[in-house]
Amino acid sequence: MTATRDDCLALDAADPLAFARDRFALPPGVIYLDGNSLGPLPRATPAALAREAQDNWGQGLIRSWNTAGWIDAPLRVGARIARLIGAAPDEVVVADSTSVNLFKLASAAVALRPGRRVILSEPGNFPTDLYMLQGLSRQLGGAVELKLVPRDRIADALDETVAVLVLTHVHYTSGEMFDMAALTARAKAVGALALWDLSHSTGAVPVDLIGAGADLAVGCGYKYLNGGPGAPAFAFVARRHQAELRQPLSGWMGHAAPFAFVDDYQPAEGIARLLCGTPSVLAMAALDSGVATFDGVEMADVRAKSMSLSSLFIDLVEARLPGVFQLVSPRNAEARGSHVSLVHPQGYEIMAALIDARVIGDFRAPDRLRFGFTPLYLSHAEVFDAVATLAEILRTDRWRHPRFAVRQAVT
Amino acid sequence: MTATRDDCLALDAADPLAFARDRFALPPGVIYLDGNSLGPLPRATPAALAREAQDNWGQGLIRSWNTAGWIDAPLRVGARIARLIGAAPDEVVVADSTSVNLFKLASAAVALRPGRRVILSEPGNFPTDLYMLQGLSRQLGGAVELKLVPRDRIADALDETVAVLVLTHVHYTSGEMFDMAALTARAKAVGALALWDLSHSTGAVPVDLIGAGADLAVGCGYKYLNGGPGAPAFAFVARRHQAELRQPLSGWMGHAAPFAFVDDYQPAEGIARLLCGTPSVLAMAALDSGVATFDGVEMADVRAKSMSLSSLFIDLVEARLPGVFQLVSPRNAEARGSHVSLVHPQGYEIMAALIDARVIGDFRAPDRLRFGFTPLYLSHAEVFDAVATLAEILRTDRWRHPRFAVRQAVT
Repeated sequence: MTATRDDCLALDAADPLAFARDRFALPPGVIYLDGNSLGPLPRATPAALAREAQDNWGQGLIRSWNTAGWIDAPLRVGARIARLIGAAPDEVVVADSTSVNLFKLASAAVALRPGRRVILSEPGNFPTDLYMLQGLSRQLGGAVELKLVPRDRIADALDETVAVLVLTHVHYTSGEMFDMAALTARAKAVGALALWDLSHSTGAVPVDLIGAGADLAVGCGYKYLNGGPGAPAFAFVARRHQAELRQPLSGWMGHAAPFAFVDDYQPAEGIARLLCGTPSVLAMAALDSGVATFDGVEMADVRAKSMSLSSLFIDLVEARLPGVFQLVSPRNAEARGSHVSLVHPQGYEIMAALIDARVIGDFRAPDRLRFGFTPLYLSHAEVFDAVATLAEILRTDRWRHPRFAVRQAVT
Repeated sequence: MTATRDDCLALDAADPLAFARDRFALPPGVIYLDGNSLGPLPRATPAALAREAQDNWGQGLIRSWNTAGWIDAPLRVGARIARLIGAAPDEVVVADSTSVNLFKLASAAVALRPGRRVILSEPGNFPTDLYMLQGLSRQLGGAVELKLVPRDRIADALDETVAVLVLTHVHYTSGEMFDMAALTARAKAVGALALWDLSHSTGAVPVDLIGAGADLAVGCGYKYLNGGPGAPAFAFVARRHQAELRQPLSGWMGHAAPFAFVDDYQPAEGIARLLCGTPSVLAMAALDSGVATFDGVEMADVRAKSMSLSSLFIDLVEARLPGVFQLVSPRNAEARGSHVSLVHPQGYEIMAALIDARVIGDFRAPDRLRFGFTPLYLSHAEVFDAVATLAEILRTDRWRHPRFAVRQAVT
């Protein structure tokens, strides 16, 4: 028996996270199933931005680096994120983009494992991660090579040649989730480091970096953390690695004494050595406001509701549209993150028609419709209505309208 | 005869840039001589930020990557900056921080000159530039070394071992300006590339990259461009180098087809290959608004007023406070940028007292008071009043108050 809309309303009435919806300024009539790609605007963010711009920048001017706490923001916001990923507050810092942070940490890992020439990852990993690792390999003149091994053979491919294993914890299309603790332990057993990309995990599934014995991680600020388009990213380094870690993007903000203006680089103590150039204060304020949408929220509640929403979605799609889509995400909710991908040869056109009908998911080439289920602002009734809209688009062939075939980049 | 306040008022009455002052939301009663470090808030920026946040992000959500032009912003804002530095619109892109962009371009330059093992710069160059080059040298296992040579010997040090010359066009404390065309030509003569840091030049002095035959450049968005604290930076690559240039921070935004989500990196055509991760849209909007403060402004007018303001400052300081400070900036206005540094053993305390009196400059260790003269919003009368305040602080020994000795980082 699949759920009725009344069943959904009953689930929503008992939702312990229902209070969080009011933290977001969602446009009326839109069902937003793309918070896994770009989190929506938190209601508090415009005022936070206005305060940062008009008061701290406009009135405080240069003095606000001290008086408004700008200089400490990367560590302060990092500490705030730490709670969501099972890290200690002094193990996380906000800086640059996920791509840049991945380069820093992969470079550092390779340097920590001299003589090992393999960076291990999987084909189909989030493209920018692979691109950055290719850039690193090329820069090092092939002294390290990027080796891609399908996920079911990664454990076997971990051997003494591997300097660092680089994986995305929750896959960006399928939503499949790796066993972080098991693979980290396996890497450690052969003397390799593990670097996890938490972009599709942070704020979506419980992550326990300390419990998993994790070494290194990076993650994104603009997806489930609701930090705004292109928000700064974060980096994690386990405390035990911090003193020995050196990364090549050694800019002044990561210097032990940035305001001494000496000629020689000396890394800051601790996680601050991951900083590079001057961070955008405005972007940082928006990220801080985004992370604050998790205040008082337990990740266990997020996980329970995420599984409930995404399982409901799969059940409804299969009941109402049998055989139309191929599910590429794990059917077992325990094995997937907080988004679900469906394959359809006309996936692009169907998603365009769905967005036109104000149900916003996204499309990932070549043929995947992707739907994110974000427990802070989505309800079961919205999932029900989204599937009803999808079914209507298929029933009426509305997606065949030529205007839905005009391809645009969809981030 | 040094100028009287009435002389200053007469100069201000004839100022062709006086109209621009109204583009800034400066706090009343403050004389802001630190726009060389952090430009003030443009009056239009809060509304631009609110529109980006509330309309484009809040209402448009993920769709705004296409519909609000987010995806094109790095090239669009880059093209807008190009006019100010004598570059073609397709030679400039906005991305990341100055530090990160310097790493990209220095790496690319080294790769373009295989077998050459020297990166040439000067001691006392802007520290983050040196730190990034040290990070690169270390990353390459010493295959290239950073060689620092005093500026009067740089021309002689340019030889066939040099892959790339990396200099800051206007020095961050002294304000001394290099002859970009002459040194670029000299580098070219020995087969080296030249990479200019324009952080203290852009929007401050006329820069003619094409005219100088420049190869590569980077610059800052938050100083004279008024883009906000930690604004994104820009990078320039001469069109003739773009096709062959490869940089190691090869993130998805610089891919030829970022939305194809393929495993292998393929650089985008042209300047877009300098992009790496997803840029902050909010920070980009503020930068765009900052660059717009130069709309209708000719850099020749900026230069003329800048020289007038800074020469007035030097003359007044020397007339009213003879022998108190040592001028470290060139006395000849043609040879300096748009800021002036004075040395005093108690420079920190004096600057703290001056800021307390609402004349805001900054301090650079160990003993330099630095004053920026930004023609878009400063008047000659303000320069007169600033020197009068400085003289009063010295006359009354007000800077000796213990609270001015409490050191804080000053950016």
